[in-house]
Amino acid sequence: MDSAALLDLLGNENRRRILRLLARKPCYVTEISDYLGVSPKAVIEHLRKLEEAGLIESRVDDQRRKYFHIARNVRLEVNVSPYGFASKSAYPASSSFDITTCRHLSLDVAWEDADELDDLLRALEDLEQLENELSLAQRWVQGRLCDVLDGISETVGTGPESRIYADLLASIRTEPKSVGELSEDVDAPREVVADLLESMADEGVVRRTERGWELTTS
Amino acid sequence: MDSAALLDLLGNENRRRILRLLARKPCYVTEISDYLGVSPKAVIEHLRKLEEAGLIESRVDDQRRKYFHIARNVRLEVNVSPYGFASKSAYPASSSFDITTCRHLSLDVAWEDADELDDLLRALEDLEQLENELSLAQRWVQGRLCDVLDGISETVGTGPESRIYADLLASIRTEPKSVGELSEDVDAPREVVADLLESMADEGVVRRTERGWELTTS
Repeated sequence: MDSAALLDLLGNENRRRILRLLARKPCYVTEISDYLGVSPKAVIEHLRKLEEAGLIESRVDDQRRKYFHIARNVRLEVNVSPYGFASKSAYPASSSFDITTCRHLSLDVAWEDADELDDLLRALEDLEQLENELSLAQRWVQGRLCDVLDGISETVGTGPESRIYADLLASIRTEPKSVGELSEDVDAPREVVADLLESMADEGVVRRTERGWELTTS
Repeated sequence: MDSAALLDLLGNENRRRILRLLARKPCYVTEISDYLGVSPKAVIEHLRKLEEAGLIESRVDDQRRKYFHIARNVRLEVNVSPYGFASKSAYPASSSFDITTCRHLSLDVAWEDADELDDLLRALEDLEQLENELSLAQRWVQGRLCDVLDGISETVGTGPESRIYADLLASIRTEPKSVGELSEDVDAPREVVADLLESMADEGVVRRTERGWELTTS
């Protein structure tokens, strides 16, 4: 499910309260309506939207009562910074995903072969702690990315709105590229890319060669 | 800024488009209004909300035109799963934060002492890759947390709505606790906690001793 649709859904306080309630236990419409102090009609409409998005499901019990519960495991991340606004949503990675292929990251947590209750509870504690550490690490990376982008802005002599300059420079760091290739890489019109390259050429940061645009330092 | 307020703000498509636009370059009201195809009045109202939240700021240029730009670096994370609904927002961690204190996680990325353009661009690339790896790792942890919670549910014989059982068991894993202490730990009323403990005692998972409730395996 895309992050815009997820943000639209989660942008409503009552829908967030419904999800929080259902994460504790499956509920039927009247329960939710009583808990929220909202009409059953409004609750049904919220449930419909959440169900359509696949976030919740329902099942009918022996008394033919329809219970709703959370169906899906979804993660949403949003970054807002002077250098960009990005949101992404994703489903959890399966256990077969090989975390050891990461180049810059290693994890040390024993969760496998946990089948006794005591092992499971220990694994739960470790995983929760790891989750917090990953969250801290991401905040740290976000801070360092800003520092580095500040450094690039300063070197190139542009303002803080200059993420696109950094992206262009990063793209030609390892090999020269044409305006057309760069336009695709940074997802901006050719004229814009050409203008930015010219202005950086004036500053002596990049130059045009037969093989394309390259850094003057290379 | 709290995550509910941030979700309310980001739950609007036009406000997301404004942020995406401002992340490219500072803009004034008419520019934004033309770009979005939305009346200046509506744009001003969106900008007011974003400014009140501290997400954007304005400055006036020589022609006395008011430009808006993104002021703040904010990160939002939301997890939706059958075991919980959690959202948190945070500011980036400062560079002095010591990532090596993490118990389950280590990072390998050189970003310090980057002052030449080439070093900065290399650091940018490494940090962006690390960011992706951390994101993957978090999805992996989210998946494993669900596996472990499934395992606990199965062992204790409860349904998938049983995050609270797991929290209770995790809380008494290392030392016996009273109903009052547990009620605070898992943030649930004493009667609810007492009932859950009794039902787990019936299953032979926990027992009441003089020192409090404990796992039968301990």
